[in-house]
Amino acid sequence: MAVINHRPDFYCNAFGSGEPALRIRHGDTVSTSTVDAHGYDGRMDAVAGRVNPVTGPFFVEGAEEGDTLAVRLDRLSPNRGSGWTRMSLAPNVVDPDFVPRLGERDYLEWAIDLSGWTATLNDPKASDLRLTLPLAPMLGCIGVAPEGGQIITTMTSGPYGGNMDYTGCREGATLCFPVFAKGALLYVGDGHAVQGDGEIIGTGLETSFDVQFTVSVLKAKSIRWPRGEDRFRIFTLGNARPLDQALQHATTEMFIRLNEDYGFDSLASSLLLGCAVKYEIGNVFDPAYTVACILPKDRLKRGK
Amino acid sequence: MAVINHRPDFYCNAFGSGEPALRIRHGDTVSTSTVDAHGYDGRMDAVAGRVNPVTGPFFVEGAEEGDTLAVRLDRLSPNRGSGWTRMSLAPNVVDPDFVPRLGERDYLEWAIDLSGWTATLNDPKASDLRLTLPLAPMLGCIGVAPEGGQIITTMTSGPYGGNMDYTGCREGATLCFPVFAKGALLYVGDGHAVQGDGEIIGTGLETSFDVQFTVSVLKAKSIRWPRGEDRFRIFTLGNARPLDQALQHATTEMFIRLNEDYGFDSLASSLLLGCAVKYEIGNVFDPAYTVACILPKDRLKRGK
Amino acid sequence: MAVINHRPDFYCNAFGSGEPALRIRHGDTVSTSTVDAHGYDGRMDAVAGRVNPVTGPFFVEGAEEGDTLAVRLDRLSPNRGSGWTRMSLAPNVVDPDFVPRLGERDYLEWAIDLSGWTATLNDPKASDLRLTLPLAPMLGCIGVAPEGGQIITTMTSGPYGGNMDYTGCREGATLCFPVFAKGALLYVGDGHAVQGDGEIIGTGLETSFDVQFTVSVLKAKSIRWPRGEDRFRIFTLGNARPLDQALQHATTEMFIRLNEDYGFDSLASSLLLGCAVKYEIGNVFDPAYTVACILPKDRLKRGK
Amino acid sequence: MAVINHRPDFYCNAFGSGEPALRIRHGDTVSTSTVDAHGYDGRMDAVAGRVNPVTGPFFVEGAEEGDTLAVRLDRLSPNRGSGWTRMSLAPNVVDPDFVPRLGERDYLEWAIDLSGWTATLNDPKASDLRLTLPLAPMLGCIGVAPEGGQIITTMTSGPYGGNMDYTGCREGATLCFPVFAKGALLYVGDGHAVQGDGEIIGTGLETSFDVQFTVSVLKAKSIRWPRGEDRFRIFTLGNARPLDQALQHATTEMFIRLNEDYGFDSLASSLLLGCAVKYEIGNVFDPAYTVACILPKDRLKRGK
Repeated sequence: MAVINHRPDFYCNAFGSGEPALRIRHGDTVSTSTVDAHGYDGRMDAVAGRVNPVTGPFFVEGAEEGDTLAVRLDRLSPNRGSGWTRMSLAPNVVDPDFVPRLGERDYLEWAIDLSGWTATLNDPKASDLRLTLPLAPMLGCIGVAPEGGQIITTMTSGPYGGNMDYTGCREGATLCFPVFAKGALLYVGDGHAVQGDGEIIGTGLETSFDVQFTVSVLKAKSIRWPRGEDRFRIFTLGNARPLDQALQHATTEMFIRLNEDYGFDSLASSLLLGCAVKYEIGNVFDPAYTVACILPKDRLKRGK
Repeated sequence: MAVINHRPDFYCNAFGSGEPALRIRHGDTVSTSTVDAHGYDGRMDAVAGRVNPVTGPFFVEGAEEGDTLAVRLDRLSPNRGSGWTRMSLAPNVVDPDFVPRLGERDYLEWAIDLSGWTATLNDPKASDLRLTLPLAPMLGCIGVAPEGGQIITTMTSGPYGGNMDYTGCREGATLCFPVFAKGALLYVGDGHAVQGDGEIIGTGLETSFDVQFTVSVLKAKSIRWPRGEDRFRIFTLGNARPLDQALQHATTEMFIRLNEDYGFDSLASSLLLGCAVKYEIGNVFDPAYTVACILPKDRLKRGK
Repeated sequence: MAVINHRPDFYCNAFGSGEPALRIRHGDTVSTSTVDAHGYDGRMDAVAGRVNPVTGPFFVEGAEEGDTLAVRLDRLSPNRGSGWTRMSLAPNVVDPDFVPRLGERDYLEWAIDLSGWTATLNDPKASDLRLTLPLAPMLGCIGVAPEGGQIITTMTSGPYGGNMDYTGCREGATLCFPVFAKGALLYVGDGHAVQGDGEIIGTGLETSFDVQFTVSVLKAKSIRWPRGEDRFRIFTLGNARPLDQALQHATTEMFIRLNEDYGFDSLASSLLLGCAVKYEIGNVFDPAYTVACILPKDRLKRGK
Repeated sequence: MAVINHRPDFYCNAFGSGEPALRIRHGDTVSTSTVDAHGYDGRMDAVAGRVNPVTGPFFVEGAEEGDTLAVRLDRLSPNRGSGWTRMSLAPNVVDPDFVPRLGERDYLEWAIDLSGWTATLNDPKASDLRLTLPLAPMLGCIGVAPEGGQIITTMTSGPYGGNMDYTGCREGATLCFPVFAKGALLYVGDGHAVQGDGEIIGTGLETSFDVQFTVSVLKAKSIRWPRGEDRFRIFTLGNARPLDQALQHATTEMFIRLNEDYGFDSLASSLLLGCAVKYEIGNVFDPAYTVACILPKDRLKRGK
C-alpha cells in the first residue's frame, strides 16, 4: 500500500472552511501532521491561528451527501518533545459555589519523552510538583464539513464530528462520519498526548502530532452521528448539551446501528444495551459536550 | 472474625424509615439477604412491597452526624435461579422524537446459573432470542438515613446514597457515606445480577441476593457525597439531574478528597484529574442521575 | 363565613413531618401566621429552626390519596415592619466563569411599610444605596405531604408542592395539590414581601406573614402536579432540574388539564398552547427548580 | 426621514452566508419583506429554500468587530391573508413517557385578517375546531454574522442572535447585537403572526411579513449577547441548552449591562434582579433554547 505524504501549508479554524488541501480516493492512506491547539508545529514554529487549527480539508473523491466516510487512524504520535496543559479545573465541572476556590487557569509546560512514552510536568510555575504519566495519544478534533454548507468553529462539535475530545479517537480506531458535502471534507487536529475523560481542565496535553489515516467511502450508507470501532468495541458519539442530550443522541444512534448493521431487533438491542452498555464522556468543556455509547464486540457475538 | 447472621423480617421502601433492624458496631461483619425490586425473596415469596424494598436499617453504634460510615461489600451473590428485566429502553435515554419507536416496556424472565455464573433470557415472550451474559452482581441501593430527618423513597438518591445503580457497588468495593443521623442507619438492596451503565432499560437483571458487609465508623471524618474504592480505583459519586450536575458534585468531592486524603494541592489535583480521570454513569433513569468520578490508584502513587 | 383562628405553637422543617396542627374540613377558612425563613415571627421572636419552617400541617377531614386539595389564598400580608434578603446573585444563575466576580452573599435588612405598601433597603452594610420597591406578597412554601410517606425538607419541591417560590402563589390565587396522605396535610410558609422571578439571590424579601386560606377537597379528582388559577389565568407547576424538565412536567400537566377540565382534544390543546402559552420561572435556586405553564382565561373561552 | 425600499431578490438559510443584499449606513431606515419559514412570499410564491430563509444580509457601513449594532423594529406586519402552524406539541416539551400520546405533527392552514388583526384556523383537517386569536407579530429570526467567520444555519441561535423565536422581537422593540464581522451583516426573517412562549409546537403562526427597521452602530461598545428594550422594559437574551444555561447567559449579560449602562454596582444589580427580574422563554424547541432576562424600566429609575 502506498502512503500519500501530505505536508500541510495551511490550517483551518472551522469545519467546512478552506479549499481542499488534498484530493484523495476511497482506500487511500495519508500521512500528515497536525499542530497544537495554539498553532505550533513539531518544530515549535507558530504556523496557524488559535484555537484548534486543523489539518485539511481532505476532499475524498466520490463521497456525496448521504454517504458515510470511514477514517481508520493508522498511526497517531506526538512529534515533538514538549506539550502544555492548563493548570486548573474548568469552572463548569465543579459545583457553582466551589468555583471561587479553583486556582489560576494559566498554562503549564510538559516534557514529552517519545522513547519512554511518557510525559513529565516541566514548568518553573510548578517546580515542586513531580508528575509523570504514560502517553495515550488521541485526536481532539476529527470531522467533516457540517450539513447545509455551514462553517462551524473547531471549538465545538456536532453530527459532523468536530472537537469531541474523545479518548477513543486513538490509534487503531476507525471513525465514521455522515457525509454532508461533496468530497466529505475531512479535517484532523488537536492532538492530545494524554487526556482524562471530559477534558475537564479545558485541555489535554496539547502538542503537535504525526497522523496517518486511511479513508473509505461507504456509498448510500447513511448515519446521523459519528460512529466508530476499535479492536474490542463499537461506539457511537453524541454531541450536545447537557450531557443528557448527548447521551440520548449516542444511545439512539447505537440502537439504530444494532438494527442496521447487526440485525438486532428492538428487543434484542434493548436487552444488550440494558445489560452491557458502557458510556464514556468525551468532553464536558466545549460548547457541545460529547458522550460515547459503547458495546463490547464479544457481547455482539453472544447476542446473535 | 465472627459474622453476624441477620435474617430480615421486614423491609423498607424509603431511606430514613423503619426502626433499626439490627444494632451493630464498628468492625462488625453482617451476613444478610435482600429481595428483588418487586419484593420477592430467594424462595420467590413476595415478602415486601414495591418498589425497591431494602434490608435494614442497620444501626451502627457510635456513628453520629458528621462522621463517615464505611461499608465494605465482602460478598454479593444472587441467591436464586431467576431474575427479570424490562424489555425496552426507557423513554428518557433516547431522542424525544424517537420515543414512539421504542417497544413495550413489559418484564422478561431470565434464568440465573450460579455455578456457570451466567444469566440466560428465558421468557416465552422472547422465545426466539438467545441471550446469555456473564454475571456481574452489584447493589442498586445502598445508603444511610438522609439529612435532617428526611424519609426519601428508595426510587431516588442523594448525598446519603440511595438508588444509585452504580456498577461499582460490587463485591470487594468499599462505599463511604456521610452520617446524618444517630446510628447512621444503613440500608442495602436492589441487587442486580448484571447491569449496563445507566440502567437504561429502567432495571438491571433484578433478583434477590445474599449480601455480606463490614462496617467501620470514621469519627469526625466529614464527607459531602458518597465515596468509594476498590482494588484498583478510588471514586466519588454525585446524584442529581441533569448528568452535568451529578458530574459537578462527584468532581468537586474528588477534588476535595485528593486534598484531604492524599495531600494533593489544587494544582496537583487539577492535573491528575485533567489527565487521568474516568467517569462512569451509575443510572440515567431514576429521578436523580448518578455519575462516578474515578481515579486509578496507580496514578495516585505516581502523583506523589 | 366563620374563620378559624389558628395560632401556631410549632413549625415544621419538612413536608410530611409533624402531628396535625389543626383538623379542618372541606370549605373551612383558616387565619394563621407564618414565620420567616430563619424562624422569626411577627414580633421578631425566634420561634422555629432553620431553614424555611412552615406552619401546619393542617389535616383536612375526608381528604384521601387520589383526591385533590384546593387552597384559596384569601389574604397574604407581611405582619411586621422588617424583612431581609441576601445581597448577591446565587452562583448557579450566572455563567460558571463569572462566579468569582459575584459579591458576598451576606444578609441585608429592609424596612417594610405596610401602610405605604413598600419595602426600603435599610442596612448599614449598604447605607449609600437607596432602593424602594412596592410589596407583592407571595408564599415561597405551600404544599402537602409527599407520596409514599416521604418526609422531605422545606428547601425543595416536588409533585406535592413545597418550596416553589412562585410569585403566582399570591393573594387571590387558588392552588391545587395531589393528595398523597390521609388528611392531605397542608403546610404554608416562607412568605416573601416581594421577589423577582427565579429567586435568583437565593431569597425573596423574607418576613413573617398573616395568612388566610380556604380549603376544598375535590374527591376522586386526581392530578399529578400542582395546579392553580387566579382571576385571569390558569397554571400548572412542574418542579425538577434542569428547567427543561420542570417545563416538561408543567406542560404535560397543562395538556392533560385542558382535556380533563376544559374538554379540549389533543389538537385544540396543542394549538392553544402553541399560540398562547406563557411560562414563568418560580425558582431557579432550590434543588428542584419550578416552572409555571400558564394560559390566560380569555383564551380558554375563545378556544371553545 | 427617508426610507430605503429593499425588495429582496435572494434569501439566506444561514447567518454569515451570502453577499450583502444592501449596503446601509448608521441611522438608515429600511423597508423590506420576509418570506415564511418554508420560503413562500406575500403572493404565496415559493421563492426560497427551507428552513427559515432570511432576508439580507444588510451590510452596515462602519460596523466593525467589537461594535454593537442596534436595530429598531419600526414596523412588523404579516403581508398576506394566510399562514400555517404545526398541529401538535413538540416531543421535547412534554415528559418523555408522554411522547407517544402526542398527535400528528402535520401542518395546518390559518386565515389572517389584517383589518380585524386576527388569525382563524382554516383547515379541512380540523374543520370542527373554531379558533381565533389576536395577531401579535414578531420576528423568529434576527441576527448578524457569527464570530470567527462561521456560517450557521437559521435553525439555531447564538451570541449573534439567530432563530430565537422571542415574542419580544416585536414592533417598537430595539435589538442590539455584538458585531463580529465587517459590516455586521444583519438578517431578518421567520415572521410569526402570533406565537406562545417557547414555540412549543415547533412553529409560530408562520407567514410572510413586511418589515421596516432602523439601524445604529454603537462604536467601541462591546456586548456578549443580544440585548434589547422596548417602551417599558430592557432585556438580555441567552441562547443555549439547557434552559439553565440560556438563563445563565442572559442573567450574566444583564448584570454586566446594569453596571455598564446604568452605573449600578454589584450589590444594587443583585438586589434589583433579585426583587424585580422577569424571565421569558423565547424558544424551547430549536437546537439552542432562548431565555430573556427582563427588568421593567420603572425599576431602573427607582433603583437610582
